[in-house]
Amino acid sequence: MAASEFALINKYFNALTEEDPAVLCGIGDDAAVVRIPSDMEAVLTMDSMLQGVHFPEQTAATDIGYKALATSISDLSAMGARAKWALLSLSLPEMDEDWIRQFSQGFAQLARQHQISLIGGDTNKGPLSVTIQLQGLAPAGAVLRRNGARPGQSIYITGNLGDAGVGLDIITNKRLVNEPHRSYFISRLNRPLIYADAGEKLRGIADSAIDISDGLAPDLDHILTASGVGAEIYMERLPLSEPMLASIDQACAWNYALTAGDDYQLCFTAAGHRRAVIDACEGNDIPVSCIGTITNSGGLQCRQNNGKEFTPVGNGYRHF
Amino acid sequence: MAASEFALINKYFNALTEEDPAVLCGIGDDAAVVRIPSDMEAVLTMDSMLQGVHFPEQTAATDIGYKALATSISDLSAMGARAKWALLSLSLPEMDEDWIRQFSQGFAQLARQHQISLIGGDTNKGPLSVTIQLQGLAPAGAVLRRNGARPGQSIYITGNLGDAGVGLDIITNKRLVNEPHRSYFISRLNRPLIYADAGEKLRGIADSAIDISDGLAPDLDHILTASGVGAEIYMERLPLSEPMLASIDQACAWNYALTAGDDYQLCFTAAGHRRAVIDACEGNDIPVSCIGTITNSGGLQCRQNNGKEFTPVGNGYRHF
Repeated sequence: MAASEFALINKYFNALTEEDPAVLCGIGDDAAVVRIPSDMEAVLTMDSMLQGVHFPEQTAATDIGYKALATSISDLSAMGARAKWALLSLSLPEMDEDWIRQFSQGFAQLARQHQISLIGGDTNKGPLSVTIQLQGLAPAGAVLRRNGARPGQSIYITGNLGDAGVGLDIITNKRLVNEPHRSYFISRLNRPLIYADAGEKLRGIADSAIDISDGLAPDLDHILTASGVGAEIYMERLPLSEPMLASIDQACAWNYALTAGDDYQLCFTAAGHRRAVIDACEGNDIPVSCIGTITNSGGLQCRQNNGKEFTPVGNGYRHF
Repeated sequence: MAASEFALINKYFNALTEEDPAVLCGIGDDAAVVRIPSDMEAVLTMDSMLQGVHFPEQTAATDIGYKALATSISDLSAMGARAKWALLSLSLPEMDEDWIRQFSQGFAQLARQHQISLIGGDTNKGPLSVTIQLQGLAPAGAVLRRNGARPGQSIYITGNLGDAGVGLDIITNKRLVNEPHRSYFISRLNRPLIYADAGEKLRGIADSAIDISDGLAPDLDHILTASGVGAEIYMERLPLSEPMLASIDQACAWNYALTAGDDYQLCFTAAGHRRAVIDACEGNDIPVSCIGTITNSGGLQCRQNNGKEFTPVGNGYRHF
């Protein structure tokens, strides 16, 4: 890379380094160095977002920067960890200062809010893609796993489901929705409403947890498989936003809620502690809904109030 | 991703998980969890390799898996850290079991040799690219940085320089070299000869270090800039392989050594301890050459025995 291009990238990305005494070496060496407190465990996630696969071509650079970080924070939250340090690998078709500035603004907005520091990574010429590796901390032995669900536990969801899926269908011209709801749905696709503290607040209360990125049905199924249990969920209890209720018919809304990706809500199970769950969530401005119960076996059953089974069409985001 | 594709990926990548009691949660949850010893610091690097940018289209999947991990290990070695845990984000144009099997074999060959465990990541459909995040450990306060070079220190290089650059020029038909040297150069491009222990062995001996990935001249310049010093190197001392000496004329070989990327050797500086450097390196089967001296200022000067300055053509790998 020419010196001027190094300088350009440094200009924007060095500004994403937060003051953090645990960062002993940040951007600008062969690797970053961080100090992990002795009573903590390091929790690591890494995901890529590719243009045309994870976000439509017309997505704004600010939204890409925001969303790439949001989805990673959501993974750590689902483990009960607090996000701390990010590495960023950015592939760009051409050096475009405007794009980099806007991307870094979107990233910074969320990074500052959560005191996350960018400590390294690389930039390359290639098809647009963003890979974020995010490292966080959780007290020793306290992480939330997918394998702790047991029969009788209640199943909970933070926030609302399905909105991002509607947003994607609007963007790709598969669905017509009028304003103001149109903007709401697109905004949920591009700016996921994550509850970064949810996992931490639920440590010691939740028994299993997962980040809903591919759709409730396939992601809850990961909990069921890892835990060797089944689940019954009650369709009328699925949390749906006002715009969803106002503009999408019920069966279709349920389908979005079960099978559309990009919601980045936390799905978790808890035995008994219903009061504790409500306090941990609503006491911290995290909306939460109880949507069902863990059963002995039988996979995922979707029940309606009329007793009938609801069968979604499609089964979540497919990586291939 | 369809269940069968999850299973396919898991089949190969789960096999890359080494037995390691410090890994509390590996592949298969929202994030991985590792325990860092209280007297250690975590050292993190992340880099992407894109087809057509970092490796030619015809590169074998085994070589891509090997090289992607090798270059990351080299970054940690340059910090004086020992590599421990890898996250892998793989983007593939199509689900290709043969490719994945071969890639994972190349990765595994090096991972097993260095007891590195794959603990997470993701796989996506897209243009072929490989991003590896590698985390290692170094004793508290012991990492090697780029900013420790001081006037009077000697400059050292492990291994040989320039071979990978010749390999790249052979592959891209810019240079004709006959066998057996042809295979040697291509092999250095695809299978970098890294000295993973070099940084660890040099803790307390080296004062600054960098991984030579873009070429000696631009990478040594990072040390000079970070340390606020200059350097004089002696062209006749640059370590060149037998095939290089046998098949490439001197000026051209020097040019490869100074400006070609992909060597992944360690460049470091040390004050005084010449005997300690030799012992640390050669005592551990790490070839090492003293190639010059750190000066007060004046950038990088390349001196020949006849007193003339050597001016390389080109200035290293450009990321854009």
